[in-house]
Amino acid sequence: MLDDVIEKVRRQVPLIHCITNYVTVNDVANSLLAAGGSPIMADDLGEVEEMTSLCQGLVLNIGTLNRRTTASMLSAGKKANELGHVVVLDPVGAGASKLRTETALQLIKEIHFDVIRGNISEIKTLVFGDGNTQGVDAAEGDVVTEENLDEMICFARKLSERTGAIIAITGAIDLVVNTSKAYVIRNGNPLMAKITGTGCMLTGIMAAYVAAHREKAIEAAVMAISAMGYCGEIAYEKLKQIEGGTSTYKMLMIDEISKLTDEKLKGGCKIEVR
Amino acid sequence: MLDDVIEKVRRQVPLIHCITNYVTVNDVANSLLAAGGSPIMADDLGEVEEMTSLCQGLVLNIGTLNRRTTASMLSAGKKANELGHVVVLDPVGAGASKLRTETALQLIKEIHFDVIRGNISEIKTLVFGDGNTQGVDAAEGDVVTEENLDEMICFARKLSERTGAIIAITGAIDLVVNTSKAYVIRNGNPLMAKITGTGCMLTGIMAAYVAAHREKAIEAAVMAISAMGYCGEIAYEKLKQIEGGTSTYKMLMIDEISKLTDEKLKGGCKIEVR
Amino acid sequence: MLDDVIEKVRRQVPLIHCITNYVTVNDVANSLLAAGGSPIMADDLGEVEEMTSLCQGLVLNIGTLNRRTTASMLSAGKKANELGHVVVLDPVGAGASKLRTETALQLIKEIHFDVIRGNISEIKTLVFGDGNTQGVDAAEGDVVTEENLDEMICFARKLSERTGAIIAITGAIDLVVNTSKAYVIRNGNPLMAKITGTGCMLTGIMAAYVAAHREKAIEAAVMAISAMGYCGEIAYEKLKQIEGGTSTYKMLMIDEISKLTDEKLKGGCKIEVR
Repeated sequence: MLDDVIEKVRRQVPLIHCITNYVTVNDVANSLLAAGGSPIMADDLGEVEEMTSLCQGLVLNIGTLNRRTTASMLSAGKKANELGHVVVLDPVGAGASKLRTETALQLIKEIHFDVIRGNISEIKTLVFGDGNTQGVDAAEGDVVTEENLDEMICFARKLSERTGAIIAITGAIDLVVNTSKAYVIRNGNPLMAKITGTGCMLTGIMAAYVAAHREKAIEAAVMAISAMGYCGEIAYEKLKQIEGGTSTYKMLMIDEISKLTDEKLKGGCKIEVR
Repeated sequence: MLDDVIEKVRRQVPLIHCITNYVTVNDVANSLLAAGGSPIMADDLGEVEEMTSLCQGLVLNIGTLNRRTTASMLSAGKKANELGHVVVLDPVGAGASKLRTETALQLIKEIHFDVIRGNISEIKTLVFGDGNTQGVDAAEGDVVTEENLDEMICFARKLSERTGAIIAITGAIDLVVNTSKAYVIRNGNPLMAKITGTGCMLTGIMAAYVAAHREKAIEAAVMAISAMGYCGEIAYEKLKQIEGGTSTYKMLMIDEISKLTDEKLKGGCKIEVR
Repeated sequence: MLDDVIEKVRRQVPLIHCITNYVTVNDVANSLLAAGGSPIMADDLGEVEEMTSLCQGLVLNIGTLNRRTTASMLSAGKKANELGHVVVLDPVGAGASKLRTETALQLIKEIHFDVIRGNISEIKTLVFGDGNTQGVDAAEGDVVTEENLDEMICFARKLSERTGAIIAITGAIDLVVNTSKAYVIRNGNPLMAKITGTGCMLTGIMAAYVAAHREKAIEAAVMAISAMGYCGEIAYEKLKQIEGGTSTYKMLMIDEISKLTDEKLKGGCKIEVR
């Protein structure tokens, strides 16, 4: 796919403005740094336009959404669009409350996103206008399997056609779809679901990857997912050796992000063109 | 006490809605996941009723309290009461400022709590209507000792009678009291006081334990304290071997929560029926 | 310099009230505890005066600034001044947005600070009234080097003369300057820039050091920088041995803060009187 995806991120050090939730914000900042980007967290309406203007990418993450920051997201998103920056949406919990669903729908109506990354329930909510997201996790019946893979690709493609965004659906199997291409990624480890914020971290890293590869945006998004998942695999192997628990696992995963190279990733990525 | 307390939590995966402070929120989420529950953090008045409706338990934690989230706590608490969900209060810093004292008193007046968990100064504040909590730690003179144990149980019982809640007072020695029963727990390690958020994490875990054991609520609350304390003990033994510091200690403690089993806990819990 | 700087902090356990950003707040609290202080995070206008009254020091950190907390900062700062408490400013991102620049300028106009600690771009912004801070990092051209060291000291001294504060400029080389003295500190490791919050943590620790050494404020500020940098050095040596990444590095750094003694620091501090 992209031979120098990581190297280029580390060389360019894309500044990524994040308006994100207060649960996982520290891990988002540290994993962005580990991946080679540079994070700026700022959410006041009085400064988000200026802050995003300094950057190359913007992440809007609606976990711990509130009215104050929604206005900031709209303002930052429009400014980033105007400047042609990469804009990525993480619709955390869309489908779990009207506020999140409506805010996510308003954001995709008023802002052009380069990538929308969520779990299958969140993405379904964006397509159908409501959903049954279980808090911040996908609902039990909602899952991408080997059997429904093609159906899910068609489904994601509709949202891509409507929004112009690359659609990334992550879970046990990950999909990345635009209007003409589709990729399936099979990296990762189930233990990643036992730490909070892997999705948020991935969204941040993805913004940095795409910002450094504007011409190859979908490939960069795919590589970000594969990189994160592969780091989760390596971290799991190390965790088993030391018989550690979930907190050590989080640390090892961010460690691996900071140590990942293009060569290493080439040996571990499991990407299928569909 | 309860032979399958942990197993049942891991099987049921209780969803716990937390309106909590931004200092320790990430550790609360990760320790809840480690214990077998699932966290949802949401604090906007526009969504807390819906969010809490999806859940089995609610935690109200008044650390970094502000006016916006107080209204959300009242709304979520009333909804959770209406639905018969487990509701747990962590009156962080009650007694340290009028705002915290008054908010805590308002919460226990308007919401029924299944459990109130705090340090001795915070609990005294709820009983007397004001206090001398030293920031977020108990005041120096306020301490549960072997000598004043029975007195403290009587004292906690009064608050239990008034509120209908189980009262959990944690410190060097931990007490759990309702109108008819009293337990003393002697697990834990002094180093736990050297990391921020052990109390907040415990409150989150306790909500999950109690949500999975509604018929045995006080026993579940006791087991949660014992489990957390025992994990602190095991973590301390491992820390000594590697000569680590306080940050490694936090990681090891959450690790142990994620690896704890009922059998292991049975071998380590130090619970006295009083 | 100060033979018992750490011991005295650990003995006095200064309570430090922090109004700070939600990105690094957990690490600030844990590193303050590790250093021997005790953190209180509270930002609502309705309680900051009372909370700061309980404490010995106050940190105002403008990362993730918003209008709600700016009013709280002004209120807490004035109260702390009235009570003669140590007050430290961390002007995170001053120069990156008008809001941050203007807020920082308003704070230094209305509040007396004992110490102002920032990167060179942030400090320049306070001197010139605007700046070109790159998000939360110094701008590329802005750097303290062996060549411009004397010039930078003169420059910092002007801000010290105007504000009455000790000025601490941190980066590859660190400077601490008041109206009559100047120190250069050469501890630290470049990897510290690859984790978020080292500056914020340092500001918190510095407040505790200065609060415990009011008569020797500038020396305490210098020792805080040296201590943090030296811990970064030891942590780096340990990291290399285990071939860890940036997340392990953060943990090891806070570990070393918790294990640091005056004797150890004496063997590692690189402080030049200028």
